[in-house]
Amino acid sequence: MENHVFLPNLLKQRAYLTPERRALAFGEHQYTFREVYAAAIRRAGTLKHTFDLEQGTKAGVLIKNTASGYFLLLALQQAGVTAVMLNNRLTNEELEFQITDTSIDALIYDDDFHNRANELKPFINNERVFPLSEMESQLQPEFEPLEQVDMESICTIMYTSGTTGNPKGVLQSYNNHWWSAVGSALNLGLREDDVWLCAVPLFHISGYSIIMRSIIYGMEIKLFERFDEAVVDQELKKGSITIISVVTAMLQRLLKNIGEGSYHPDFRCMLLGGGPVPKSMLEQCKEKRIPVYQTYGMTETSSQIVTLSPEDSLEKLGSAGKPLFPCELKIVSNGKEAAAGIEGEIAVRGQNVTKGYYKREEANKKSFADGWFMTGDIGYRDDQGFLYVLDRRSDLIISGGENIYPAEIESVLVSHSAVSEAGVIGVESEEWGQVPAAFLVSERELDSSEVKEFCRSRLARYKIPHHIYFVDSLPRNASNKLLRKNLRELIQKGQFNDNQ
Amino acid sequence: MENHVFLPNLLKQRAYLTPERRALAFGEHQYTFREVYAAAIRRAGTLKHTFDLEQGTKAGVLIKNTASGYFLLLALQQAGVTAVMLNNRLTNEELEFQITDTSIDALIYDDDFHNRANELKPFINNERVFPLSEMESQLQPEFEPLEQVDMESICTIMYTSGTTGNPKGVLQSYNNHWWSAVGSALNLGLREDDVWLCAVPLFHISGYSIIMRSIIYGMEIKLFERFDEAVVDQELKKGSITIISVVTAMLQRLLKNIGEGSYHPDFRCMLLGGGPVPKSMLEQCKEKRIPVYQTYGMTETSSQIVTLSPEDSLEKLGSAGKPLFPCELKIVSNGKEAAAGIEGEIAVRGQNVTKGYYKREEANKKSFADGWFMTGDIGYRDDQGFLYVLDRRSDLIISGGENIYPAEIESVLVSHSAVSEAGVIGVESEEWGQVPAAFLVSERELDSSEVKEFCRSRLARYKIPHHIYFVDSLPRNASNKLLRKNLRELIQKGQFNDNQ
Repeated sequence: MENHVFLPNLLKQRAYLTPERRALAFGEHQYTFREVYAAAIRRAGTLKHTFDLEQGTKAGVLIKNTASGYFLLLALQQAGVTAVMLNNRLTNEELEFQITDTSIDALIYDDDFHNRANELKPFINNERVFPLSEMESQLQPEFEPLEQVDMESICTIMYTSGTTGNPKGVLQSYNNHWWSAVGSALNLGLREDDVWLCAVPLFHISGYSIIMRSIIYGMEIKLFERFDEAVVDQELKKGSITIISVVTAMLQRLLKNIGEGSYHPDFRCMLLGGGPVPKSMLEQCKEKRIPVYQTYGMTETSSQIVTLSPEDSLEKLGSAGKPLFPCELKIVSNGKEAAAGIEGEIAVRGQNVTKGYYKREEANKKSFADGWFMTGDIGYRDDQGFLYVLDRRSDLIISGGENIYPAEIESVLVSHSAVSEAGVIGVESEEWGQVPAAFLVSERELDSSEVKEFCRSRLARYKIPHHIYFVDSLPRNASNKLLRKNLRELIQKGQFNDNQ
Repeated sequence: MENHVFLPNLLKQRAYLTPERRALAFGEHQYTFREVYAAAIRRAGTLKHTFDLEQGTKAGVLIKNTASGYFLLLALQQAGVTAVMLNNRLTNEELEFQITDTSIDALIYDDDFHNRANELKPFINNERVFPLSEMESQLQPEFEPLEQVDMESICTIMYTSGTTGNPKGVLQSYNNHWWSAVGSALNLGLREDDVWLCAVPLFHISGYSIIMRSIIYGMEIKLFERFDEAVVDQELKKGSITIISVVTAMLQRLLKNIGEGSYHPDFRCMLLGGGPVPKSMLEQCKEKRIPVYQTYGMTETSSQIVTLSPEDSLEKLGSAGKPLFPCELKIVSNGKEAAAGIEGEIAVRGQNVTKGYYKREEANKKSFADGWFMTGDIGYRDDQGFLYVLDRRSDLIISGGENIYPAEIESVLVSHSAVSEAGVIGVESEEWGQVPAAFLVSERELDSSEVKEFCRSRLARYKIPHHIYFVDSLPRNASNKLLRKNLRELIQKGQFNDNQ
C-alpha cells in the first residue's frame, strides 16, 4: 500500500476545477461537471444505503448507453464499488458464467433488461438485483466520497475470451485508465473545446475510456444510445463534435452516407479501432479529408496502445502505428526480441496494461512477464518502428467491433448431440468486416437452421455462424490439432455442402 | 525498487515517435527530435568516456540559455547523471556552498564562466571541471542509453534558500517532472503546433520544466539567451510562438513595448509566475487581449501547482487560481485544515512535489507530512476554492523572478566588522517588482557604498540591497525576534539616514 499513488477523487476534482464546463450531452439533456458530480454522489448514496454496496464490493452492470447508465458508472466510482461491465449482447448463459466467476455482490440493470435480470437472479449472491429505476427513485443526498483515489484499486472488470477455455475478467485499475487517458492526450492533443462522440458501447473499453478521458480532460461527451449513421453524419458535418471513436463497420456506414458533403473542419480525429481497414476505405477517407487515426488496442491495454496518425495512414498503409508515449512495444520470436521486419508475437508494456486476469493464475503466468503483456497477436515492426499486425490472436474474428473467439463457438457447436466435430473461422462480410463461419462433421442428417436455432440461446447473436458447412472431416495436424487456416481452403475448393 | 514506475527513456521515445518534429530553435539554428536525441547521445558518450561520469553521479551545471547548454542537460539525462543546476547569477562564494553541499563529481560550465570555474575548482572532488567546448570537441559516438527511466531517480537538484540557515537542494525526480508536465497539459491543453518561448533561465525550474514539457509533448522550444522585450514582442506579434513563460518584470517590459499593436491570435498562453501582479497590469493585459495565466509554484513543486485561467483573472483578481488536476491544496491553521476564507499556511500535495531536500532531515521533517508539503506561504481559499496568497514565506522578496530571502542577506551584512545588526525587507520597484532594502545598526561611521562593495563578492548582484538605511536600533519583539514588518514603518516615518 505505501507505494501506491493516490490522486484526488477524480470526478470531485474535475467538478471543483471546472464546475460549469459541459460534461455530458444525451438526447435533449445537457449536464455540467457540477451537475454530473452531484448526480453521481446522490446515486453513490443509494448504492451504499439502499443497495448496501460498500467500498470494495463488486457490482455487475447491465446497461445501455444512456444518461442513467453513465451516472451509474460515475456513482460506482464514487462509492468505490468495482463495476463488472456486462456486454448486453451476450446471452444469459454467457453472462451467467461471468457473474458467477467474479461473484458479484449485486446486479444493477437497465429496466429494459428486466426479464434477463430475473433469469440471472439465482446466480447472484442473495439474489440482489436492482433496476436503474429503483436507483433513480431513491436518490440519497447523504454521501461523503473519498478525498483520494488509490490508483491501484480496481475500477472495472471487463471479460474477454481467449484461445481456449472460459472468458477471463480483465482487471482495470484507476492507474490503467489514467495512463491510457494521458497517453492518448499526449498523442492526439487536447483542446478546451473538444467534444467526444460516443456511440460505442459503454460496457466496452472503447466507450468506458471516453468517460475516463472526459473526467480527466474536463471534456464533453456526446452520448448516443446507438450508432445511427445519418445522425452521426449530421454531427460530423455541423462541427458540434471534434473527436469520435468508431469501428470499421461504422466507418463504412458513414462513408456510404457522407455523399457529396464533407465533415466540418473542427472535427479533428476519427479514432478507428477494431481490426484491419481495407485500403479502399482509407483512400476514400483521404479523399474526403477525414482525419482517421487507426489504432491497435485491447481490453487488456485499457483502450488503444498503438496509434497511426492521419499523415502516416497512406504511406504506412496497413500499419497500426507507433505506441503511445508512455507505452512500449516489441516483437518476440523464439523467446527473443525480434529485429525490424521479423514476424513474431506482439508484446506491449505500459502503465495502462492490466496487471492480470481475475483469479486466473495460469493465464497470468503465461501472458505477463517483466511487465510485458504477450498479446497472442502476430506482427512485425518496420525499420522506423511502425507496427504491422498480421494475425489477430488465436484466429480472432472481429465482427462489427466485437471480438469473437472460434473456440467459444466450437465448444457450443460440439455440445449439440448430432455434431461430432466443429471448426470456426471468420469470413469477410461487407457489412460487419467479418462474420463467423462454421464447419461441422455431423452424425446424422442436420440442417443449418436447426444448428443456428441451437446456438441462439447459448451465444450472443453476433457470434452465431452466418455460414454453416457440412464436411466429412476437419483438417488436423499430426497431433490432431485443428488447422483452422486450412478450413478457408475448403471453401475455395468447394468441398462441402452449404445447407444455409 | 519493485514498486517504482519505469517509463521508456523519454527523449529516445520522443525521437522514435516524432523524429522529424522540431524540438529546438536557437538563434539561426533549428533541430528536430531526431537531431537533439543524436546530439544528446554523443554528449552522453563524452560524459561517460571522457569525463568519467557514470550513471548515478552528480554534475554541477553552470550554463547559459544556449543550444549547447540545452544539449548538456539532455545528455546528462541520457547518461543518468543528476544535474545540480547552478544559478549563474550567484557569487562563487554562494556556489561554493552548493557544490560542497551536494559533493558534485564534476562541474561542467559554459566557457564564458572559465574564471569562475577555476576559482571553484578546489572545492570539487578531484578538481574535475570541464568546459562545454571540451565536450563539443570530443563527441563520442558510442553510447547505449538505458531503455527505461526509473521515475524515482533524481533528474535535477536545484537550490532554494529558506527562512534561516543555508540554501537547501531540492530533489526533483523524473516522476516530479513528468507529473508537472502532464498536470500543465491537462490545464493548458496541448496542440501539435505549440511552440514555447523560453527566455527564463534553464537553471531555474521555470526554464527546465519547458525542456521536460518539450520532450513529453513533442513540442518545440524557442530558446533565447536573454530576455529582450523588443525581440520577444516581435515573436508574439508574428505568431511564431503559442506559449511563453514570464515573470512580472518581463510582462511589464513587454507592456511598455507593445504599443498600438496586439499579439497574434495563435499566441494562446502567457504563463506568469514569480509573485504578485499589480491590478493595473492585468487590466492592461485584458485590454490588449493577452491570455495571461497567473501561477503559483516553487522549486519544490517542480514548477506551477496552482494556476488561474485568463477567464477568471479579473473576476478573481489577486488569486493564484486552482490546483492542477493531479494536485491538491489546503490551508492549515492551528494544525488543522482551515475552512474557506480563513488564513493559514498553504500546503500542497501531488506527484510533482519533491520528496524532500538533499540531506536535510530536519527541514524535511518540518516541511513534509503525509505527502503534504508545507510551503511556509500564507493564504486562504475563497468559497469556490480559489487560492489567494497573502504573504510569501518568511518575508520572501521576489525581484525579477529571483527569490531572495532576507535572512541570507542579513547574515552577510552582520559579517561586516562594523555592522552589529541588520534587517532586510523588499520594497517596491517599478523595474523589478521588488528590490531588497537593508536597515543597519553600525558600530562606526559607515557609508552605503562600502556596504554594497562588501556584499558584491558575497552575494549575487540581484541580492545586493538597493537601499541602505542606518538606524539606531531594529524593531524586535519580546523574544528579541526581528520584526521585519515594522521596518517598513520606519521608512514611512523617515526614522533613518539614507546614505545611498
